[in-house]
Amino acid sequence: MQLNEIFKKLKQGQSTVIDFKIKKNPNILTAASLEKAKENDISFLDNNSQLNLKNLIKTSKASALLLPAYDKYVVEIAKKISVDWILLKDPKIAFAETLEILYPTEIEGEGIHKSSVIGENVKVGTGVSIGANVYIGDNTEIGDGTIVHAGVVVYKNVSIGTHNTIHANSVIHSGSKIGDECVINANAVIGGEGFGFVPTSNGWKKMPQVGVVILKNKVEIGSGSTVDRPAVGETIIGEDTKIDNQVQIGHGVTIGKGCAMAAQVGIAGGAEIGNGVILAGQVGVSNKIKIGDQVIASSKTGIVSNIESGKVVSGFPAIPNKLWLRCSANFKKLPEIAKAIRQLDRRNFR
Amino acid sequence: MQLNEIFKKLKQGQSTVIDFKIKKNPNILTAASLEKAKENDISFLDNNSQLNLKNLIKTSKASALLLPAYDKYVVEIAKKISVDWILLKDPKIAFAETLEILYPTEIEGEGIHKSSVIGENVKVGTGVSIGANVYIGDNTEIGDGTIVHAGVVVYKNVSIGTHNTIHANSVIHSGSKIGDECVINANAVIGGEGFGFVPTSNGWKKMPQVGVVILKNKVEIGSGSTVDRPAVGETIIGEDTKIDNQVQIGHGVTIGKGCAMAAQVGIAGGAEIGNGVILAGQVGVSNKIKIGDQVIASSKTGIVSNIESGKVVSGFPAIPNKLWLRCSANFKKLPEIAKAIRQLDRRNFR
Amino acid sequence: MQLNEIFKKLKQGQSTVIDFKIKKNPNILTAASLEKAKENDISFLDNNSQLNLKNLIKTSKASALLLPAYDKYVVEIAKKISVDWILLKDPKIAFAETLEILYPTEIEGEGIHKSSVIGENVKVGTGVSIGANVYIGDNTEIGDGTIVHAGVVVYKNVSIGTHNTIHANSVIHSGSKIGDECVINANAVIGGEGFGFVPTSNGWKKMPQVGVVILKNKVEIGSGSTVDRPAVGETIIGEDTKIDNQVQIGHGVTIGKGCAMAAQVGIAGGAEIGNGVILAGQVGVSNKIKIGDQVIASSKTGIVSNIESGKVVSGFPAIPNKLWLRCSANFKKLPEIAKAIRQLDRRNFR
Repeated sequence: MQLNEIFKKLKQGQSTVIDFKIKKNPNILTAASLEKAKENDISFLDNNSQLNLKNLIKTSKASALLLPAYDKYVVEIAKKISVDWILLKDPKIAFAETLEILYPTEIEGEGIHKSSVIGENVKVGTGVSIGANVYIGDNTEIGDGTIVHAGVVVYKNVSIGTHNTIHANSVIHSGSKIGDECVINANAVIGGEGFGFVPTSNGWKKMPQVGVVILKNKVEIGSGSTVDRPAVGETIIGEDTKIDNQVQIGHGVTIGKGCAMAAQVGIAGGAEIGNGVILAGQVGVSNKIKIGDQVIASSKTGIVSNIESGKVVSGFPAIPNKLWLRCSANFKKLPEIAKAIRQLDRRNFR
Repeated sequence: MQLNEIFKKLKQGQSTVIDFKIKKNPNILTAASLEKAKENDISFLDNNSQLNLKNLIKTSKASALLLPAYDKYVVEIAKKISVDWILLKDPKIAFAETLEILYPTEIEGEGIHKSSVIGENVKVGTGVSIGANVYIGDNTEIGDGTIVHAGVVVYKNVSIGTHNTIHANSVIHSGSKIGDECVINANAVIGGEGFGFVPTSNGWKKMPQVGVVILKNKVEIGSGSTVDRPAVGETIIGEDTKIDNQVQIGHGVTIGKGCAMAAQVGIAGGAEIGNGVILAGQVGVSNKIKIGDQVIASSKTGIVSNIESGKVVSGFPAIPNKLWLRCSANFKKLPEIAKAIRQLDRRNFR
Repeated sequence: MQLNEIFKKLKQGQSTVIDFKIKKNPNILTAASLEKAKENDISFLDNNSQLNLKNLIKTSKASALLLPAYDKYVVEIAKKISVDWILLKDPKIAFAETLEILYPTEIEGEGIHKSSVIGENVKVGTGVSIGANVYIGDNTEIGDGTIVHAGVVVYKNVSIGTHNTIHANSVIHSGSKIGDECVINANAVIGGEGFGFVPTSNGWKKMPQVGVVILKNKVEIGSGSTVDRPAVGETIIGEDTKIDNQVQIGHGVTIGKGCAMAAQVGIAGGAEIGNGVILAGQVGVSNKIKIGDQVIASSKTGIVSNIESGKVVSGFPAIPNKLWLRCSANFKKLPEIAKAIRQLDRRNFR
């Protein structure tokens, strides 16, 4: 596709074109990073990139560049290079849109593969694709345009909305309610039983888990992630919340809208998480903790007490990020600190 | 079901009824938390609940309550409210029993789904349900009343006892021995090969993993959890031990009876864990570590040396919980500590 | 098999026989640890074992022992015991080879199970075994001698080399390239979409993930592990790198040759990891981090900045292992340290 065609489509998108130079109007075949791009590739530079990345513009072999319009250093370079470019308010969004243009989503063939097993009283919408060796339990509903890949197991009484993509070998348990435009990645488990056992004199007594899991619209669940259903009530993941791989969401957790949770995060039962919360990789949240809106926790943070809206936290137990950075810097000095005190106070400290 | 019918069944259970007031004898349709309960719901308050939860009794819309008999504050409230209640020694057990009464486990249809593939010389007991697209390898035995959900793969020479529930798309490798009344949740892997590689001048030499995994009776394994088989001998999980989602049990690990391991715990190869041990979320245990009976480790603890029976540990490396709480409180003061020393001893500490 | 037959084969292996005593020439039926071995078992002692393990040689009931040739204490004991033994430069490699001899890998029947579903234009080599309920997408290639176990789903346009073993219910996404002699364990996911979302005023904008995952030869991926594909370019795992269970490899990560990553490691997007790197359990690596060759990180390490070749690191944030050991030892003394400072400087520090 020629660059001026991509340009026309970007003008209709969300990235806000500010300026452009399309002289050679190259034929764009693929997209790549600045470093790895070759001829006929398009590449981009994000806002607020590091200097060494900015300088890559000078040497990149890409045939077209999507660049940040409000970065003077970058614009200066752009004026000197021979390659075509487009200046944008948000070049990363432009790159995402360009990938959509260059690599349109393949349409799965509509229809139910003959090797799949469909229970009784299952309602299937129009434009639905159900792959090989899928199992759909009784009384389940699957809305229009939803794609169910090979090997997926959906138990009974599940409600799945429209235009979802459910990847291979994932499992959705009874009673789960999936909204519209969700993505459930391979080997994820939605609605497994919560971990509830009561100690008795005869060992563990299992608390029946008769609640359900609700995924609102535009929720994405990563490969191998698990979202448990509660004893009573619901586990809820809010609209547009994105969850990476191998994340555990415990029974009865409530998560707000527009959150992002990176890989290997674990959220224990009953936690309540607000809107726009970002948890980095391997973060843990203890049970029944309340986290406000727009909270950010850096990687490996352990949240064991409530966090107010807007806070940025780190460490275990979690403390304000800036304080944690200073504490960590001093942690490295602990042997010296101990030595200094030993010298100052030989009597009391050894 | 009317409350007095539930009451009759609870009297035969494990929760010990102490007193009751059944006047309206409401029709109980569902169960819910105190906060979310509506008319015709039953709810409960656990022993040792926090004051704000206790006060919810006054405003809860539940039609019946299971309450702690030995909590004076609660009993005082109960006497004043109009709703029916039952006082119990253990209201949480009563609530679990009530859920069993209100939501009886659905009986899976006996039989082997025609889409499943059963190997040679497989022995299947009575009352067994084998779902769609299941694969059972040669010489495997499945005991009476066991339910194997859709998509499960059982390799060769596996022994599965009676009344187990094996959820969708989980995998059980050759030679594994599963006791009775176990639950293996979706996408769990039992008996995968242990991670054993020996460095050589030609790269990694794989140590063949010819041992097996043994799950004793009443073991539960969470969704996405993995239990590896060892090079030689057995990986053993003791009776009534409950394992949450995404837990990794390494090759040759031995776990005692009645333990509970929360989500994302990792136990490295050869560790020996006693009875009644509780590991909270994201705990790690290093290889060949010995942990005594009744040990408790709080979340994210890293256990790198042996722990004696009865200890409560925290932190990484693990130290006694109470010490860790004090150390963590002081960790936050490290910048101040460093500053104080700098002032006291400018010559030696900067 | 008689010991002298095993001995003959070991002489052709990699473990370097130094000396031997084969008098009784026992019939070896199985292999076991020193502690659990019984008659007709063969066992081994590794180089640099602890004293209590060495002393087990005196009491082990094994009928034959593979022992370290250059351990004087062990050789001294060996001379006094009646059991047959072989002294080796590397007894652990000898034990691995002995397991291969005693437990030869079962050959899976060649052929495509009739319950599997094979797409259009799929090329299958000779000696390939495709199990029950497998799905293979269009245009995929599977090389000679590769075994695909039951329930595996391979999407379209995947290239799988020769002599791979792909275990049950794992998933390989479109475009992935698997080399030769790899092992992909059960429920692993190769080539799932990277976690890429761009914040916009209308919520998260998904960055299309059109890159691919490449596993070089002899790569092993543990049960439940996930390897994501990037937006553009490749996620690459180098030759002979071994990855344990429940490991997350983010989009665009590059890992060198001969690495080992223990269970529950998480590597964020774009990280570049050298050759021979060893990451212990639950280690986390932040995005775009560069790690040199031969780096070792102990368990639970959090690597948030680049690490030079040859370093041994620990803690979070990662610091040199030896420093971390001293800091951790002093962490336990923080309450005393704070107390001492409080006494020294009552005015400024409370």
